[in-house]
Amino acid sequence: MFNLCWADEGGFPAGDRGAAYGDGLFETIRMHGDQGVLLSRHLDRMVRDAGRLGIPVSLTALRKACAAATSRYAGRFMTGGASCDWVLKLTLTRGEGGRGYRPGSGIRPTLMVSAGSMPEAPLPSGVAADFSRVPLMVNPLLVGIKSLNRLEQVMAAREIEGELFEVIMSDTAGNLVEGTRTNLLLKVPGGWVTPPVKSLAVAGVLRQWVLERLRARGEYVEERAMGIGDVLGSHCQGLYLLNSVIGVVPVRSLAGQDLPGDGGLATIFNPLELLE
Amino acid sequence: MFNLCWADEGGFPAGDRGAAYGDGLFETIRMHGDQGVLLSRHLDRMVRDAGRLGIPVSLTALRKACAAATSRYAGRFMTGGASCDWVLKLTLTRGEGGRGYRPGSGIRPTLMVSAGSMPEAPLPSGVAADFSRVPLMVNPLLVGIKSLNRLEQVMAAREIEGELFEVIMSDTAGNLVEGTRTNLLLKVPGGWVTPPVKSLAVAGVLRQWVLERLRARGEYVEERAMGIGDVLGSHCQGLYLLNSVIGVVPVRSLAGQDLPGDGGLATIFNPLELLE
Repeated sequence: MFNLCWADEGGFPAGDRGAAYGDGLFETIRMHGDQGVLLSRHLDRMVRDAGRLGIPVSLTALRKACAAATSRYAGRFMTGGASCDWVLKLTLTRGEGGRGYRPGSGIRPTLMVSAGSMPEAPLPSGVAADFSRVPLMVNPLLVGIKSLNRLEQVMAAREIEGELFEVIMSDTAGNLVEGTRTNLLLKVPGGWVTPPVKSLAVAGVLRQWVLERLRARGEYVEERAMGIGDVLGSHCQGLYLLNSVIGVVPVRSLAGQDLPGDGGLATIFNPLELLE
Repeated sequence: MFNLCWADEGGFPAGDRGAAYGDGLFETIRMHGDQGVLLSRHLDRMVRDAGRLGIPVSLTALRKACAAATSRYAGRFMTGGASCDWVLKLTLTRGEGGRGYRPGSGIRPTLMVSAGSMPEAPLPSGVAADFSRVPLMVNPLLVGIKSLNRLEQVMAAREIEGELFEVIMSDTAGNLVEGTRTNLLLKVPGGWVTPPVKSLAVAGVLRQWVLERLRARGEYVEERAMGIGDVLGSHCQGLYLLNSVIGVVPVRSLAGQDLPGDGGLATIFNPLELLE
């Protein structure tokens, strides 16, 4: 089990390995009252990826913590007596202990639980994005893990200014990988393209759900490397940003160039239908 | 200026960007009483690399914090009335604020100051090391910065077991880059070889000092990529691990193979001569 900490009661111990080395991972979950959007997928991902890092945690314990969190926080996010959406953040660290980078044995993890308001919703007509100048390096061992090592995303997010909603990061070979907080999905003639999981810094919960939904509809989805030519070339029929809190966001303009697309995919995701 | 925090008084706020994203950097400094080994180099590096991350901090403010830290902590590390060595750790984070990865403007950084005992000294006759199975990816934008994004080093340090003192990490091209907490220096006929700064996750303070000292002696030092053949081949005349707290550590055996070397370089670093 973990030490359960509430963000409104205190912070991380100075010696917590999450704060010292980013030795941990997190989930941000869109909530409506006491229910969470795609909650099982978020918790399953945390359990699986904690296991990859060697941080022991059970799904049962996480579910209990979520139940306690909704009891504690959901009432704070009401408008006119009705529930409104809020964001539950779970941060799981390896805890305190060990010497330097090397963890000791039998360390008890820390689970920090916090609640926040929803971010501002993007315009349904779409957003402006640009290419980031910060390259994204994804360690094969850590692929897809929403770990606390997010300095590259922070440095890229510093480029988001003015009307920009997002910047898209590329690997050192020039492949487009993902936004700072979103995965990419491209509409092309005959189907969809998205970068493969093995290239991703964060393998998004909404990304996986959308791919499954599209395939269930019989649509063709290809997971392959994407270049600038794919999104700014003549085959692009629409580019979407995926984030499980914000939703499916059409990109209206990229690096100053208008993108095509009717934004139709944006309606595939209805958070109220996915509450658990 | 920063918010100065003492590790023995409390921890990081739950919303601190250091704990959330590894958005910060740190120094560990070998102290003797109220003086620090290569102290100026440590503080200069922190100021320079904080600037690269866009975290404002002045050398003057850091020096004041160090003076306060020695007043607070040095007396705790005495044996029989005499000073003994201890370790001062400075962790500077971007502080609290912003929305998600994107920092807000005018955030006040956090400086967390802690004191610890010296790690166990390695045997003067040398240590055993091995190759890590964890690849090391170094973002060109973050080269050399001792940031709080150290999950790769943590994962590699989990491989350090039994008699092992260190594991050596390689990039995805197979070049040897550094240990989890040490830089590499190889003795070859006619001089020395060490991986170049542009390839390093952490550009060590002791590494730079040793290179300068060797060059001042008229010895030839080449900064170039190093492969397994360099260290396990017939040209290897000794491999050393460099860490400013621990010192210059000869490697006696690597991946089970005995390495040559008289360990002579280990005496180049006398911490008592480098106190400031």
